Amino acid sequence: MGQPEIPKEQWAQVIEKDGGPISYKRIPVPKPGPNEVLVAIKYSGVCHTDLHALNGDWPAARKTPVVGGHEGAGIVVAKGALVTDPDVGLGRAVGIKWLQASCLGCGYCMQADEPLCPRAALAGYTVDGSFQQYAVVNAAHAARIPSSLIEGEGLAAVAPILCAGLTVYKGLKESGARPGQFVAIVGAGGGLGSLAIQYARAMGLHVIAIDGGKEKGEACKELGAEAYVDFMATQTLVDDVKALTGAEGLGPHAALLLAPMEKPFQQATAYMRPRGVVVCIGIPAGARISMPVFDTVVRMITVKGSYVGNRQDTAEALDFFARGLINAPYKVVGLSEVQSVFDLMKENKVVGRYVLDMSR
Amino acid sequence: MGQPEIPKEQWAQVIEKDGGPISYKRIPVPKPGPNEVLVAIKYSGVCHTDLHALNGDWPAARKTPVVGGHEGAGIVVAKGALVTDPDVGLGRAVGIKWLQASCLGCGYCMQADEPLCPRAALAGYTVDGSFQQYAVVNAAHAARIPSSLIEGEGLAAVAPILCAGLTVYKGLKESGARPGQFVAIVGAGGGLGSLAIQYARAMGLHVIAIDGGKEKGEACKELGAEAYVDFMATQTLVDDVKALTGAEGLGPHAALLLAPMEKPFQQATAYMRPRGVVVCIGIPAGARISMPVFDTVVRMITVKGSYVGNRQDTAEALDFFARGLINAPYKVVGLSEVQSVFDLMKENKVVGRYVLDMSR
Amino acid sequence: MGQPEIPKEQWAQVIEKDGGPISYKRIPVPKPGPNEVLVAIKYSGVCHTDLHALNGDWPAARKTPVVGGHEGAGIVVAKGALVTDPDVGLGRAVGIKWLQASCLGCGYCMQADEPLCPRAALAGYTVDGSFQQYAVVNAAHAARIPSSLIEGEGLAAVAPILCAGLTVYKGLKESGARPGQFVAIVGAGGGLGSLAIQYARAMGLHVIAIDGGKEKGEACKELGAEAYVDFMATQTLVDDVKALTGAEGLGPHAALLLAPMEKPFQQATAYMRPRGVVVCIGIPAGARISMPVFDTVVRMITVKGSYVGNRQDTAEALDFFARGLINAPYKVVGLSEVQSVFDLMKENKVVGRYVLDMSR
Amino acid sequence: MGQPEIPKEQWAQVIEKDGGPISYKRIPVPKPGPNEVLVAIKYSGVCHTDLHALNGDWPAARKTPVVGGHEGAGIVVAKGALVTDPDVGLGRAVGIKWLQASCLGCGYCMQADEPLCPRAALAGYTVDGSFQQYAVVNAAHAARIPSSLIEGEGLAAVAPILCAGLTVYKGLKESGARPGQFVAIVGAGGGLGSLAIQYARAMGLHVIAIDGGKEKGEACKELGAEAYVDFMATQTLVDDVKALTGAEGLGPHAALLLAPMEKPFQQATAYMRPRGVVVCIGIPAGARISMPVFDTVVRMITVKGSYVGNRQDTAEALDFFARGLINAPYKVVGLSEVQSVFDLMKENKVVGRYVLDMSR
Repeated sequence: MGQPEIPKEQWAQVIEKDGGPISYKRIPVPKPGPNEVLVAIKYSGVCHTDLHALNGDWPAARKTPVVGGHEGAGIVVAKGALVTDPDVGLGRAVGIKWLQASCLGCGYCMQADEPLCPRAALAGYTVDGSFQQYAVVNAAHAARIPSSLIEGEGLAAVAPILCAGLTVYKGLKESGARPGQFVAIVGAGGGLGSLAIQYARAMGLHVIAIDGGKEKGEACKELGAEAYVDFMATQTLVDDVKALTGAEGLGPHAALLLAPMEKPFQQATAYMRPRGVVVCIGIPAGARISMPVFDTVVRMITVKGSYVGNRQDTAEALDFFARGLINAPYKVVGLSEVQSVFDLMKENKVVGRYVLDMSR
Repeated sequence: MGQPEIPKEQWAQVIEKDGGPISYKRIPVPKPGPNEVLVAIKYSGVCHTDLHALNGDWPAARKTPVVGGHEGAGIVVAKGALVTDPDVGLGRAVGIKWLQASCLGCGYCMQADEPLCPRAALAGYTVDGSFQQYAVVNAAHAARIPSSLIEGEGLAAVAPILCAGLTVYKGLKESGARPGQFVAIVGAGGGLGSLAIQYARAMGLHVIAIDGGKEKGEACKELGAEAYVDFMATQTLVDDVKALTGAEGLGPHAALLLAPMEKPFQQATAYMRPRGVVVCIGIPAGARISMPVFDTVVRMITVKGSYVGNRQDTAEALDFFARGLINAPYKVVGLSEVQSVFDLMKENKVVGRYVLDMSR
Repeated sequence: MGQPEIPKEQWAQVIEKDGGPISYKRIPVPKPGPNEVLVAIKYSGVCHTDLHALNGDWPAARKTPVVGGHEGAGIVVAKGALVTDPDVGLGRAVGIKWLQASCLGCGYCMQADEPLCPRAALAGYTVDGSFQQYAVVNAAHAARIPSSLIEGEGLAAVAPILCAGLTVYKGLKESGARPGQFVAIVGAGGGLGSLAIQYARAMGLHVIAIDGGKEKGEACKELGAEAYVDFMATQTLVDDVKALTGAEGLGPHAALLLAPMEKPFQQATAYMRPRGVVVCIGIPAGARISMPVFDTVVRMITVKGSYVGNRQDTAEALDFFARGLINAPYKVVGLSEVQSVFDLMKENKVVGRYVLDMSR
Repeated sequence: MGQPEIPKEQWAQVIEKDGGPISYKRIPVPKPGPNEVLVAIKYSGVCHTDLHALNGDWPAARKTPVVGGHEGAGIVVAKGALVTDPDVGLGRAVGIKWLQASCLGCGYCMQADEPLCPRAALAGYTVDGSFQQYAVVNAAHAARIPSSLIEGEGLAAVAPILCAGLTVYKGLKESGARPGQFVAIVGAGGGLGSLAIQYARAMGLHVIAIDGGKEKGEACKELGAEAYVDFMATQTLVDDVKALTGAEGLGPHAALLLAPMEKPFQQATAYMRPRGVVVCIGIPAGARISMPVFDTVVRMITVKGSYVGNRQDTAEALDFFARGLINAPYKVVGLSEVQSVFDLMKENKVVGRYVLDMSR
């Protein structure tokens, strides 16, 4: 099989100014550096973070112009002179995730905490991302996608795992919850939440889903939640959650906060069992966590933040997916249509994940 | 050696109504239940918690009247029919700590988290404590004091370890800090703080002491702190703390919050290094912990509460003391003088620990 | 509902001399001590350990005469004066397991490692066990059986969980294997093995079953094993096991050694991946573990022993069972027939677990 | 300050055939690859492993000819085009350790277990090492030596930390022993042992030194061992060790096996307390670990191998040294004299560490 020729130019979606709109345009195809591979992106998920990047919402500095996107799945078509690892060789399926590269030499990289590397390169934020037909990625950081996913719609389906799936899987690991224990997932009906329910189930946990509305409740239960609490329908959320955690009703061992609202951050510590662990993942604009010192101390509650996963977490999150344990509903649209996906996001009308087909 | 006779009546300090004063009076000597031992208390420390108990400051329910005190050191003089453990046999030195008993059968007791037992009996709070000449304690919960401390002033010196020492030692364990790492101790110049500095040192940690005033700084360094930050003398506390943590200045790995003020709870998350752990121990009245979600997530900060230690922590904290690694300055006054110690506490005039001599 | 009257005498199976036979006879019904409950045993599993006890096979000292048995499930019918925990109140379902009591005061009990308590009382070994119609057990150690299992055959079905299930569940926890990782179960077709497969699955692990013969292979796969290696049919067991562990074939993360033979102990370290953990559970008479130092060091292999679980492990193992995730095949025979079960064991003819009906 | 010119040729000690002798000769100065730095080696320790390499003692494949050495300390004098990390910039002090490079992309590298990387490059074994005046090292793997050690004899003194110190520090971490617990160090009087005593002390552990002869005992105690057991002078080593571990005499929590003999591997499991952890580090030729299954299981003993430390362990081991907590006695000889050091090693006449001065 001959390697298809790599063009000089390509289509891309480029963030040029705060607030957008994002520009669909022709740009040069990049060349991989010595430690990089060039990936022919086939599909790229669209994440809420991409909208935050477009809007310039966050305190952290962003490059402009920058090609957006950090959930890209594709095939290696070229590589730098120093890349020898067969797992990212020509023809292999790889992914581009939020961490496009890190220094591999600082204290955090040395301890497998590369998301905390002060020199990390962030796809679609500080370096060009996956909203282009050909993207470069550091070979050590390219996500190794199991070859079984090259066929059919595998690369479209796997794209959302590269950020959304990875992030909730990492959060579940950080919670320390063990098989057989209870985890509350707050914002369970959303995109992150529906993945979190499935990962938690595959990890042997009992899931209490929390979100608003009847429809979301049904969806959560279908994905494997053992119980559902509708915050719109109850005045006694704290007691309701506790009542669902076995005969003693002590409350869940862990909670994942995925909702884009501040209130759940205030409630969670109240329904946790003593020694419970609250993991913050979602980042509502300007939100604060707040809890009473007395209760935190005498009940020994832990609150911690969890950012994206590292490379090993990525490999594990992909493995759960490749085994068929995770099913992330998605809709495919063309690369040219990113702005309309953002528009739906702004109106809070996105259900499931949008995935871009880079060929159109 | 004949066992001295046990009297029928004794002196005690009894909390009778919220706000006090505490009553110095004669009461009957209690009889040990089948699983209990009777301890001739020789010395008892006076803890801030005793003042909170007297004042009825806390949300948790308290028995009235109740004999105060939960840092009692003495000798076993009688035991219940079911007590067979030689470590709490007649003539052995034992301690009465905040946990006078727990159910030993609930999920928390089963996991060595008996301070979280919902049926725990709290000395000087829900059951009679150590401000009496003879006190009973559940045999399984009596702190095993090394026999070497029976001689001389050993039992007076060890008393503050039974609550203050234990609490800070537990907090250091909960922080997860490893030998060679940095820990910030906030409120380092106080009673808990000076013990925390010494335990941290004995555990191979580098201590950054934080408190107010020059005098406290000198005291902290004498006890082994590597550096001191005077919050009264600096406008750049966050930067100052970071600058003290090695060439990179990433901030400490852990922080212990012992200060009776709310502000340090707000500052701590700012100077922690990514992945740092803030341990809350002190409980300022009505205080709240509050931190920004964005920073907590992207820097993966953990905030957790640590309550008193369990029985194993007690044994370990006592062992560090018995080896001469911990030196807790104390002043001895008579049991009859508790109220005057409380009066000094109210005026914030207590330096070091007051220990009661039960014989006067 | 009136409490049925407790008789003065009862039927029991008593070990009277090394090598047996065990005596089926009338003995007095015991009275619970102050910290004990009296259990009307409904069903009791028969474990290989009971045969070892009868034979006096082990170095550890055994009481004689002693009522055998340590997998008893029944109902509390009386309790000592000091027992107040409602979870072991009259009418509650409880279990008698290998640890009938422990001191609750030593360093191991303090750290929730009560199986290592030097004063532990072992049912059917150092104290009377569950092969009798009424048995006493320390209230803190009585296994809390979920009430849902009182109905129907629940108490017969749960009996084998109290030792066999608990032991393999503990071993899986001790292995440190996380959901998504590979565990090899050696002796997977036996009684312990078939439980281990199911617990491992419920914990999100991938199971490689190892045993001898085609029939066992089919049984293992039905219970959830992902792959089966027949040691009787292969000359390349080490390579075979490695080949089943994903694309890289590095070998399993953990192995549980349940087989009553020495050879698997020698093989296991060879097929483990670097950093792999071998957990020894089965105890072949006189067997030794042996491995080369060079390989152990440069591949950082861990070998550890795992004994029975503690009380918390018991609660967790029972919870997995009560949720319907574990199915332990068993045959019910009368209490009077224990010796014939032992005879089958000696001939290696037991498939699944025998459970005694105490009413006949 | 002008950078001194880099010569074209240099002196080196080269392993050319199994069994030696090693050749002292002129070879070309290597050029750093894009991800490498060139280090002007100032001092290099001589490790027993170098002798094993010369002899071709081990099953693992070795390159020939190869420049020996893997404890090199020096200054960066040139760097590859892709090296940007200021911590390995020109003029910085760095070290060359056993792991000269690893792939940084495999599962082990991703989890900070790079010593287990199947593509690891081993200095003085599979790639040229530190027995030369100028050596290359992968920038991510160059040990960052604190700048304070550039002055005086700092670089000579630190050289043995890069392998010997690192290895024992890693072993202590792997043991899981916490401050205040007991660790037995077997072979405490040797080069590894004397470093292990000091690291253990700095980590808050109580050290029981085990070795042969009175003189070694005195040396061990001077370095901080709390007790010494002379295996040449006792018939009851197991009981002696246990008696030194506090009032209960349960045995140490951990043991480090550094001795070049097989017998201690057989003894260690006998004196460990239940739940104790034996860490194998030394690799006697052809030795095996062997222990009884019964005892391993019912006492829950763990035996594990520990190889060299990772990059983070290196940074930590160096930090303990730079703080003055570790004092490794050494003798300086010229690079030209390596063979005579090997000759002393063969005769077992080396006390302390030999360090080569590369200028002569």
